[in-house]
Amino acid sequence: MSLEIYLDLFSQPCCSVYIFAKKNNIQFDHKKISLFEGYQYSEEYGKINQLRKAPALKDGDFCLAESVAIMLYLAEKFHTPDHWYPADLQKRARVNEYLSWQHSAIRMHGSKMFWFKLLIPKALGVEITKEKMDNAVDDLNASLNIFEEKFLQDRPFVVGDQISLADLVAIVEIMQPVGAGMDVFENRPKLKAWKD
Amino acid sequence: MSLEIYLDLFSQPCCSVYIFAKKNNIQFDHKKISLFEGYQYSEEYGKINQLRKAPALKDGDFCLAESVAIMLYLAEKFHTPDHWYPADLQKRARVNEYLSWQHSAIRMHGSKMFWFKLLIPKALGVEITKEKMDNAVDDLNASLNIFEEKFLQDRPFVVGDQISLADLVAIVEIMQPVGAGMDVFENRPKLKAWKD
Repeated sequence: MSLEIYLDLFSQPCCSVYIFAKKNNIQFDHKKISLFEGYQYSEEYGKINQLRKAPALKDGDFCLAESVAIMLYLAEKFHTPDHWYPADLQKRARVNEYLSWQHSAIRMHGSKMFWFKLLIPKALGVEITKEKMDNAVDDLNASLNIFEEKFLQDRPFVVGDQISLADLVAIVEIMQPVGAGMDVFENRPKLKAWKD
Repeated sequence: MSLEIYLDLFSQPCCSVYIFAKKNNIQFDHKKISLFEGYQYSEEYGKINQLRKAPALKDGDFCLAESVAIMLYLAEKFHTPDHWYPADLQKRARVNEYLSWQHSAIRMHGSKMFWFKLLIPKALGVEITKEKMDNAVDDLNASLNIFEEKFLQDRPFVVGDQISLADLVAIVEIMQPVGAGMDVFENRPKLKAWKD
């Protein structure tokens, strides 16, 4: 039984799964799909992922959606190094805390910035009003403040000295507004040091 | 060192933590807080939870936010019965998939319904426009369809015959629009059977 992972590397959650699998030398059949071309709505893909999103994993007959769930599955199945998802109760809790928080914070606000600054104006030719854009920038900045002050504090990574799934999920999302032309690292030396 | 949990039982994530702890006979010091009265913004609470949300856990010096992370912490620390967070790789993945998906789906759309139908009109005296309300109802219904068709299918619970954290997190959120006067179980026999 081969392990298949369906990815569109323009999608942030796909990037985190891809980097995680590659960094850990996990062998998989990379199924390249295009969300922009609407492959997620095909009948074929509906059998793999009823959520109609990417990424998706197919391991024999077992299909799994949601990037965080996929990485936790890979981490356990392939016994990846402990630092990715530490066995230590408190460190693991810290990773889970970030993975839970980010959905409605950095992920949502970073994606919105990408849509507002790039996709909506370029693909639909519609400019976002200044008020909407200012609110979106404020939301993103509030999330980045929390990331620095609560999740990073004075540590090199979210749970200490080594990278975990929390950092990986964070960096792919934080780079999304960067891709839309917003320098999120300006005046944020802590965030910049973490990224480097 | 005593285990403290800060809860406002008007908040859905607090309810799931409370039910989980009680069902599993976990002894904790129940710190009752009121989000409505703004306790989350106090200096005292900022030391417990910088995210300024509820619930929060304090176990000795260790503070933890995010209901999902808190329940996973309790499940591991107190060795709760396996069905809540199964050790089986695929079953656990199914729970993680739901816990990851729900943040931007049932949680977001159920909460919005509560705000639109109850809090905003009652607390602020502002009526939500029909267009906004219709969109919010459509979003919630789309999430409920996915919950039935993908997550429940023909099983009694999300991962099979026994209740897991996925079902617990789902039910508290699905009851939120009910509390706002929307009968989410109408014409949904599968969802109703699951709730019962």
